[in-house]
Parts: sequence; structure tokens; C-alpha cells
Amino acid sequence: MLKNKLFLDALQGKTVSRPPVWMMRQAGRYLPDFMKLKAKYDFFTRCQTPELAAEITVMPIDQIGPDAAILFSDILVVLQAMDIPVEMKDGVGPWIPNPIRDAAAVDRVVVPDVDDRLHYVLDAITLTLEQLDGKVPLIGFAGSPWTLLCYSVQGSGSKTFDVAKAFCFSSPDAAHKLLQKITDTTIAYLKRKVAKGVHAVQLFDSWGGLLGPADYQEFSWYYLQQIVAALQPHIPVIVFGKGCWFALKDMSRSGASALGIDWTCSARNARYLSGGEITLQGNYDPARLLSPIPTIKKDVKEMIAAFGKDRYIVNLGHGILPNIPVAHAQAFVDAVKEYPK
Amino acid sequence: MLKNKLFLDALQGKTVSRPPVWMMRQAGRYLPDFMKLKAKYDFFTRCQTPELAAEITVMPIDQIGPDAAILFSDILVVLQAMDIPVEMKDGVGPWIPNPIRDAAAVDRVVVPDVDDRLHYVLDAITLTLEQLDGKVPLIGFAGSPWTLLCYSVQGSGSKTFDVAKAFCFSSPDAAHKLLQKITDTTIAYLKRKVAKGVHAVQLFDSWGGLLGPADYQEFSWYYLQQIVAALQPHIPVIVFGKGCWFALKDMSRSGASALGIDWTCSARNARYLSGGEITLQGNYDPARLLSPIPTIKKDVKEMIAAFGKDRYIVNLGHGILPNIPVAHAQAFVDAVKEYPK
Repeated sequence: MLKNKLFLDALQGKTVSRPPVWMMRQAGRYLPDFMKLKAKYDFFTRCQTPELAAEITVMPIDQIGPDAAILFSDILVVLQAMDIPVEMKDGVGPWIPNPIRDAAAVDRVVVPDVDDRLHYVLDAITLTLEQLDGKVPLIGFAGSPWTLLCYSVQGSGSKTFDVAKAFCFSSPDAAHKLLQKITDTTIAYLKRKVAKGVHAVQLFDSWGGLLGPADYQEFSWYYLQQIVAALQPHIPVIVFGKGCWFALKDMSRSGASALGIDWTCSARNARYLSGGEITLQGNYDPARLLSPIPTIKKDVKEMIAAFGKDRYIVNLGHGILPNIPVAHAQAFVDAVKEYPK
Repeated sequence: MLKNKLFLDALQGKTVSRPPVWMMRQAGRYLPDFMKLKAKYDFFTRCQTPELAAEITVMPIDQIGPDAAILFSDILVVLQAMDIPVEMKDGVGPWIPNPIRDAAAVDRVVVPDVDDRLHYVLDAITLTLEQLDGKVPLIGFAGSPWTLLCYSVQGSGSKTFDVAKAFCFSSPDAAHKLLQKITDTTIAYLKRKVAKGVHAVQLFDSWGGLLGPADYQEFSWYYLQQIVAALQPHIPVIVFGKGCWFALKDMSRSGASALGIDWTCSARNARYLSGGEITLQGNYDPARLLSPIPTIKKDVKEMIAAFGKDRYIVNLGHGILPNIPVAHAQAFVDAVKEYPK
């Protein structure tokens, strides 16, 4: 039995006493206890060891007090399960030793048995739910097929993902084949997460905003829509497309329960572009958490006033930065809990 | 006497037989003759040697045939003139050995005599105009104060410019002092470019889209507006803010002659957000130039149909990528010249 239903109520569009709050990447990075684990275990060991993933997931719930937990994991574990090895290099980030560059490589990509290849994520969900003991709901997540294609083709992070885009624009058939394989894997993966008990799912389209609107429809939204449809109406789905303001209308009609908004889209624009009915989540500039604490508290109050108390989930507009002082993250959460003061 | 006035006519909102076309970063990168010069002279030598800058500026006019030339230079020469050394490192990009991190460092930044410190740019304009011999107009440019602050504080390129943003959000007074110094220098610099004979000026706010709308007003637009006002009505000004769709309304009322649009903003959204009257410039995804040539030609025709023939300048939505085949750049320009076929 959930003791805090604010997050699920907001996803269902119910009237709430105050909006719920959580922070993207709240499990990790800025927390000193996370940094201690980071010093002992490498990135994918933390993802692949259910005990560690559960410990990291619950850490901010106990220490900062947000209204939802998000499973500690990474969008790239799906590529690993598809026989596309991914490493995490210090100071570089994700690193794919053998990026996909042609149709033959796409043909070699497998759609795996997720229970076999991603059992550690499913086990982490079971452990986490035990440890959360109903305190707050648990969010599962996956990357969008487009965003995963970006990494698998580019071979690393990038400002422009020009190699990935060149692949799509010069070999669209191969690109679509890869996107469909990622989509099929992601649907199976998320269905298993739902079966294990996550209360909601968030889809991260971190690089959707690198595409123009027509290309976004073709290479990203077409696949995201398949995933949303496959999960409806069993579980609330949040779609977060960074830089995808131009797609908010389509997203709002997709069956998703909520849309993530980045900080370049004002509350007013976000409500207008998404049609005014759907729950929105966001959108504090992560770098703004480096402001003085009184500024953060004032900003949060103004943000709630702008989005409105209902159909709204307070969050950042993208992942928290590693150099945010814990007291500033705490002030962000506290300011929401002090509402309507 | 200018032999090709299409570009200036479009900036003045006149009816034209076809829209003019040029490409951001057309002087360089993808041109084999440029690569030969690159192998012989380092980046800032090319910028600082008027004969080289003029040769590179004219190169695409002779080889590709766009309707305007843009002076080969770099937005960062303004920082160098302000006693903020900037290097260009292979594989890294811009590198500032002593980034600005506190109020004392801001106080040491000078507002220079631009005739003394940037004479090589002014000399390059004179030489270029001689070599162009009236074939096409010449565009001068500068970076926005915010974008220059980003580099001067961060110390290098960045996906998020988190250090630069942290500086603004934690030390706003020092940030504003620096922004005003850059603004004053830029106004003096562009006035001298105009006196030397450039036919139009473009302001590049490459990193404006990293700010939310309220922060954009405070840390970027307030200064860009000063620059536009200082140059009006003497010279047409194009304002290009990458990712700044949310600011198009303010920009359209600023006195600017045209607004640059990136490829994430559809023609329809761009016309709507900018009020429907001002000339727009853009917005082909630079990575889309990696498409097959027939796709490029079809896309250009659709783009002109979407923006409309008048009050429109065909361009990319950001700088051309270094790996674009010359034939693809040529096809982009040719497709415009074939209008209305």
C-alpha cells in the first residue's frame, strides 16, 4: 500500500493539496553517499548489481524526501542486452567500441529475451520495492529508440550526433530496421518492469531535439508512440523529449499520462502547446540549482504558480548536475513541500 | 555597385524573383581549397591575415555561387581584443587558458580600441570588397555577448556551459558587468565594420538556447537589443539565436531586419512566432546535407514553399558540417537558383 500517492494522483489529473516533486537523476551524482559507492564500483557494476541499484534508488528518498523514486539504471543497458557492447569511460562518458555503421551491422543486432539479459534490472525492482516499503511510488524508465540509435551509431556522446544523423539520412531503411528492433526490445523490457511492480514509466528522448519536426516524426516519434500504445492503459507513461517543444501536441494525444518539459519552454508555452489538459512535469534549469537558496525557493514558488498546482509534477528540466550542493537540492524539494506558503 | 542585390532586397522585404541563398560557415570547412590553407596556416593566422581571410571569404562565391559572402573570421577574436587570450586546439576547439571566474577577473577585462586591436578584420573587409568587385554583398558578424561570456567563463566549448551558467546565477553582478563590456566592444567593432563597407551584419547567439526564457531576457537579449539598436537604421541586422524560438517575438520587434531560424522550428511556427512580417533566414538541418542529392533538392523546394518566396533567405539552420561533400552544398545552392522549377 502506497503511503504517498501525490505523484500518481497528479499523473491521473486528480486535484492535489500540493504538486508532487522528484528530480531527474536524483539517484546519484550530487549525493556524497553515492560518490562513496562510485569510488568502489564502476558504473555498470552499480547498474547490474541489484543490491547497489536498490540502495542508490532509495538513498535520495531517505535523504532528500521527494515524492517518487526512480530506479537507478541507465538507458544504455538496453543496447548491451541487444549485443551492442557499451562501456562508461571516465571523463568521456558512454563509449561503444563497435558502433553500428551499416545495414549488415543492423542485421547482427538481436532482439533479446529481456528476462535473460536484463534480469538484474528486474531483480533491482523487486529489492527496491521491498526497501521502499510503500513510502513513495517507483518509476521505471527507458530511453527512446532514437536516443539509443544516436549512441549506438555515433559510438559516444556528441553535441550534434552528426554521424548518427548521417546514417539515418543516407541509409533510412537500415536506420528504421534498427529503430524497430530497439522499439521491440524496449516494449518487452518495460512490460516486464511493469509486471515487477513499477508504478509508472518514463521515456527519455534526450536527443529528440536534434531533429527537425519532420525528421522527429519519422525517426523518433513513430517509435515512441508504439511504446506508449503498448503500455496503455496498464500503467501511467511520462514522455520527456528534451528540446521537443514542437512535438508536444502529438505527444499530448498519444495516450501518455504526462509530458516532461525542459526549461526552454515556459509554463505558458508548455500548457498552450500541449493543449492545456495533460499533466506536465518540469522544468527548472538544472544549472539554476547553483543559485543562492533564497532564489531557488522563490523560483520554485513562481514555477508552481505558472504551471498551476494541479496536473503538474515539479521536477528539473533535465538531469541534476553533479556539482549541485545537497542543501540546494534539498531547498528545491522543501520549497515544494512548503506550498502554498 | 552591387551586381546581385537579391540578399539586400530580401532583407528590405522587397518582392524578389527567387529567394537569395547563402550558407553559414560557407567560407571554409567543407571546401578542399580551404583544407589546403588549413594545412598551412593555423586557425587564428587565417583570421588575422587579411589576405588569407579575403581569399577564404571569396572562395565559395567563385566555387559554389551563393548570393552573399560572409567575412571569414571568428566570434572569439573579440575576446582576444579584450585581453582574454583564446587558442584553437585541434580536436578540442576553442581554448581559453585563463577563464574568467570572479569579479576581479571581470574588472581586468578591457574595452579596447577596436581599430588598434582588430585592424586585421577591418583590413580584411577592404581587401574582400575589392576582390568581390560588387558580385555579391558582404556580411560582417559578431557573437552575442552571452555566447562570448559562455566561452570566456567556461574556458572551452561545452554541451551545457554549466560553469558559465553557474557564474551568472551565483554572481549576477559580475556577469552583467562582463556582458556590458562585451556589448560595448561589439558595438564599436560592428560600427567600424559598417564604416569599412559591409552590407549587412549578423549576430550569432549560438548558446542562447541553453537559457530559459526569463534568463535569456536577462543575460542575452538585453545586450543583443543594445547592439541592434546601436546599428539601426544604418545597416540591416540579422539576429540568429540557435534554439531561441521562445524569443522570436521580442526579436521581431527589435529593429532587426531578419531573424535566423534553426531547423527545429518549422517555417509555420517561425512565421507565427515572429509575427509574420519580418524576413526569416534558415533553416535546413546541416546534417540533412548528407542526404542523397535528389532529397536535398526536393527538401529545398519544400522549404521555399513553406517559408514563401518573399521575406525569406535560404540558409542552413546552423553552420555547415566539415564532412559535407562539395556536390551536396552545390546542390543546395543550385536548387534555390532553379526556383520556381
